[in-house]
Amino acid sequence: MIFQKKYAMLIPVKKDIKVKFSNYFIPTLKEEPSGVDYLSQKLMLKSGMMKQVSSGLFVYLPTFMRVAEKVCKVIHEKMESVNAVPVKFPILVAKEDLVATNRWDAYGDEMFRLKDRNKKEYAISPTNEEYACFMAKNFIKSAKNMPFCVYQIQQKHRDEIRPRGGVMRAREFIMKDAYSFHPSTQSLDEYYIKMENAYKEIFNTFGLDFVEVLADSGAMGGKECHEFMSVCDKGEAEIAVCECGFCANMELAPNGVCPECGKPIAKVLQGNEMGHIFKLKTRYSDPLNLTFINADGKPEILQMGCYGIGVERVICSIIEQNNDARGIAFPEIVAPFVVNIITANMKDEAQVHLSEEIYHELTALGVEVIWDDRADRLGSKLADSELIGIPYNILVGKNATEGKAEFFARCGEKTLLSKEEIIAKYKK
Amino acid sequence: MIFQKKYAMLIPVKKDIKVKFSNYFIPTLKEEPSGVDYLSQKLMLKSGMMKQVSSGLFVYLPTFMRVAEKVCKVIHEKMESVNAVPVKFPILVAKEDLVATNRWDAYGDEMFRLKDRNKKEYAISPTNEEYACFMAKNFIKSAKNMPFCVYQIQQKHRDEIRPRGGVMRAREFIMKDAYSFHPSTQSLDEYYIKMENAYKEIFNTFGLDFVEVLADSGAMGGKECHEFMSVCDKGEAEIAVCECGFCANMELAPNGVCPECGKPIAKVLQGNEMGHIFKLKTRYSDPLNLTFINADGKPEILQMGCYGIGVERVICSIIEQNNDARGIAFPEIVAPFVVNIITANMKDEAQVHLSEEIYHELTALGVEVIWDDRADRLGSKLADSELIGIPYNILVGKNATEGKAEFFARCGEKTLLSKEEIIAKYKK
Repeated sequence: MIFQKKYAMLIPVKKDIKVKFSNYFIPTLKEEPSGVDYLSQKLMLKSGMMKQVSSGLFVYLPTFMRVAEKVCKVIHEKMESVNAVPVKFPILVAKEDLVATNRWDAYGDEMFRLKDRNKKEYAISPTNEEYACFMAKNFIKSAKNMPFCVYQIQQKHRDEIRPRGGVMRAREFIMKDAYSFHPSTQSLDEYYIKMENAYKEIFNTFGLDFVEVLADSGAMGGKECHEFMSVCDKGEAEIAVCECGFCANMELAPNGVCPECGKPIAKVLQGNEMGHIFKLKTRYSDPLNLTFINADGKPEILQMGCYGIGVERVICSIIEQNNDARGIAFPEIVAPFVVNIITANMKDEAQVHLSEEIYHELTALGVEVIWDDRADRLGSKLADSELIGIPYNILVGKNATEGKAEFFARCGEKTLLSKEEIIAKYKK
Repeated sequence: MIFQKKYAMLIPVKKDIKVKFSNYFIPTLKEEPSGVDYLSQKLMLKSGMMKQVSSGLFVYLPTFMRVAEKVCKVIHEKMESVNAVPVKFPILVAKEDLVATNRWDAYGDEMFRLKDRNKKEYAISPTNEEYACFMAKNFIKSAKNMPFCVYQIQQKHRDEIRPRGGVMRAREFIMKDAYSFHPSTQSLDEYYIKMENAYKEIFNTFGLDFVEVLADSGAMGGKECHEFMSVCDKGEAEIAVCECGFCANMELAPNGVCPECGKPIAKVLQGNEMGHIFKLKTRYSDPLNLTFINADGKPEILQMGCYGIGVERVICSIIEQNNDARGIAFPEIVAPFVVNIITANMKDEAQVHLSEEIYHELTALGVEVIWDDRADRLGSKLADSELIGIPYNILVGKNATEGKAEFFARCGEKTLLSKEEIIAKYKK
């Protein structure tokens, strides 16, 4: 029972993993899920992306994980493009750190709290300004080290009084949070615009219809923050868009007039928050005495910004904007699989053989393929593909004997093609 | 302040991100960190991979994140190769779920516990057998659905009485945990061997010197589990290897004789646990009444296995086995960067120009490059590269005017090469 060997050569990792529907885990539901508030929630439950296990707590299933990975990849790349660097903060934050910034009391019931075995108190962090400041305090010596921005993509917790909308308002959720540090308000303003543009690029990459609105930063003071809201039929918040076409606000002016430019409110959209960016200025750096040595050789308080994106909220928004009566119509860039090979009859050797050949050749080209190799009825397999939201299908049926199969986009026209013609579509 | 547009074409994500040392975040220490128990802990602190923020709680910095990503990629691929599917369980588990399996009481002080705003009790899950069983209960109908295995890579928490060794024994750590379900002990036995082999492949991929040992599964009963221990100069546990060369045990037999085969203990190795695999059998499925309909049409209790890998422990083990007096010598497969371009004098235009050209051309070839563009002394830059553990360096110095630079493996011989010769090394 011993295994001990120092390998001189590293073993290469095999990449030719088959994803077969029969041994994957996509538990679609035939019946309508009950007690749902949102369309995205219904579709995510029905298509087997997630399963609720407690109030506001969900297990994410494989198709969710694949979609989330793609969403996070885009976020990572855009964060790198503004020189934000990846870190991971602990989710436990000691009470004294939150007391120093007055957040221990300010958060109230929304923050989960606990004691360790020595009765020391911790919170499960809703956000990580304190740790980010701690990093900055240790490593920023002068203006040369700035702008300095750290980010993480990690789960967060909020003890919601009424969790609802599936993962739209859950008690555990995945968030990208970034924190930037600056020697001057001018540096903060410039970086804020860079980050604002990175946010627009992120949401555009997913093809989302969204509005950027001036928002209320609450206890953080001022109007120095913006929310990025997806436009949905049924959103959590109303957005008032003014006649000038350039102002959007989270709060409806009681007199029907835009509080920004004085013009009448032209239309109201219903939206869901996906991202929120803040100029925190010295809100945290001042109480934590976070300084750098300025050009005059004197300590000066740092300027700070913070920038959040709710990963589940992006996924929900994509689903809210890309669906029909049959299910989810994922854009290719975030789809859990790009191609579904559907074998009409698994007892037909020619069909199985052709399916397998197409599967291997597409996989070798780097296309993300799933093979629906289940013994189920064809109608049920087609319905599942439309529900899950796979953009392209290859139906291998009775023409398999001639080496041909039907290629079609989700809910689109079928075209009978030879295996070679299908493969050619995916050759660069 | 409004931005609203539905793009027909998706914006491609730009991949030409420059990683420059000057705007990255690798806070190496000149001084020796104090209060360290392990060499890996010292090297991780000194090379700027992590920073402690509270007892047993660490912030992971960018080089750590890059190494961890690579370690996790290999784990993901090997889990896929045994048809384990990715999920994410909530880290909060309701008390009643843990009471049902008797773990609420059994875990004692090691498990963090908390109450929500409605005084409902939760634990921060040490492992997720209960949720895994819940998934299985909902989706396994018959033997056809098995073997069924779910896994996640996610942080876990343990209220260690004495956190030590840096991230070797921390209170928050990243773990891969997998749970498999079976219709028979034979199916469990077969899958267990597959997983055992996947584990060996994972540790071999990282070039680790390790031992697989029979271990005590404690309260879980029996000897149906194995630990994978890295062999280190100073490990947490002693491993007794018997004369026959095939038995290894976690416990030194008091009479110096192997409890397995009766032969004398030949040598003792000092090891660190990286992975642990268990045949849980019906330990959880029985109390949770997790059944399937067997061939006789009768409900039968499922067989279960679980399989863990500590991601930080793998990283620590790699560092413990790959270092010298100058720092970490990461194997290429997990190195945070593969190549470091070190510009000797950032005020020399020819050096900066050649460095930039090499940077762009290597990046375009998909090589992970960092450019040490700091104004620091050359000696300090070379020392940092050796400390961080970057496998290859390109030193751009006075030969830059002839388009030449020195290429060398970490602590290896320097070779003066033209830019073209350097690039050719990385062309496939």
